[in-house]
Amino acid sequence: MERIQKQMDFLFEIDKMKDVFRQSLVVKGKREENDAEHSWHMALVALTIKEYFKAEMNLEKALKMILIHDLVEIYAGDTPAFGQERPNKKSEEIKAAKRIFSLLPADQEKHFLNLWLEFEECESNEARFANVCDRYQGFMQNLTSDGHTWKKFNVSMEKVLKRAEPIKKYTPELYEKYMLPEFLKYKERGIIK
Amino acid sequence: MERIQKQMDFLFEIDKMKDVFRQSLVVKGKREENDAEHSWHMALVALTIKEYFKAEMNLEKALKMILIHDLVEIYAGDTPAFGQERPNKKSEEIKAAKRIFSLLPADQEKHFLNLWLEFEECESNEARFANVCDRYQGFMQNLTSDGHTWKKFNVSMEKVLKRAEPIKKYTPELYEKYMLPEFLKYKERGIIK
Repeated sequence: MERIQKQMDFLFEIDKMKDVFRQSLVVKGKREENDAEHSWHMALVALTIKEYFKAEMNLEKALKMILIHDLVEIYAGDTPAFGQERPNKKSEEIKAAKRIFSLLPADQEKHFLNLWLEFEECESNEARFANVCDRYQGFMQNLTSDGHTWKKFNVSMEKVLKRAEPIKKYTPELYEKYMLPEFLKYKERGIIK
Repeated sequence: MERIQKQMDFLFEIDKMKDVFRQSLVVKGKREENDAEHSWHMALVALTIKEYFKAEMNLEKALKMILIHDLVEIYAGDTPAFGQERPNKKSEEIKAAKRIFSLLPADQEKHFLNLWLEFEECESNEARFANVCDRYQGFMQNLTSDGHTWKKFNVSMEKVLKRAEPIKKYTPELYEKYMLPEFLKYKERGIIK
């Protein structure tokens, strides 16, 4: 019973993801997106664009990473992609990861913590793909909100291109055919500086 | 490019899941839960309670079903678990499934539609497990809202037990050790009638 109770404590705690808000707008600019919605949409991005990632990859593992990657924000908060850098972000997120996964039985704690660390390191193929999906989902929410976060943070093309680097590197067809042309349109309109 | 555009049209359309609301309350009763949040939380339920489902099962496939199972509600709306029965629910949802997946390239349309139909039929092990997770997530949201949907629909123990049948059948340890004792507590308090 103690094992089940720990699993339930974890599943109850992560309900808080529905109350961690990001900068992206959803539903035609109606309101900000929360981390639960972002993680779900990002998983759907993964299922839909997988073909553009050419390296061998275990989709189940990538989906797990996607589903848990933002749990740390329950305690560490969201760090906007184009906002001010937070010098303590990494240490705060590691602390948060240890805290959230410690609710689980030891074997699951270890499994989830390792998956989260692997996502952060972005060196395995699964972690690279999950990072592509993370950034691509943020990009998409900009397209459906007339460049909301680009406008809000007065973002330069240099910063936009930097943020898109994993997409250019790991899913180049998607980048060349769809993403870069959109960047250029928003630059032309003066929304990307 | 036409292929990518279709995939993008699908990924933009499903943003609407964040605006389809269920009866369950989230974040300590703050507001109703939407389908994107529900699908994400249900995927986390799957990752956490998988060990109680003893039959052989492909987790990647089950996760896919979980992630897409409620997309039909963008057009067909949510049907509350304990609300009035909707006689046309099945036909409306099939129509909605065809509509949403038709946005995708033909191979993906077929793949997602088949997964959705398999979930609905609830006969494969993956579909059974996904259905367990669906009902279990709804149960959990009742525990964090003092039985909100049980109260709202004045639900009898008979209905609660009927709804829990897949959990009893396919994850019996979870049912016996955790779920049934909770039902009995809520019955004792007069919240389940």
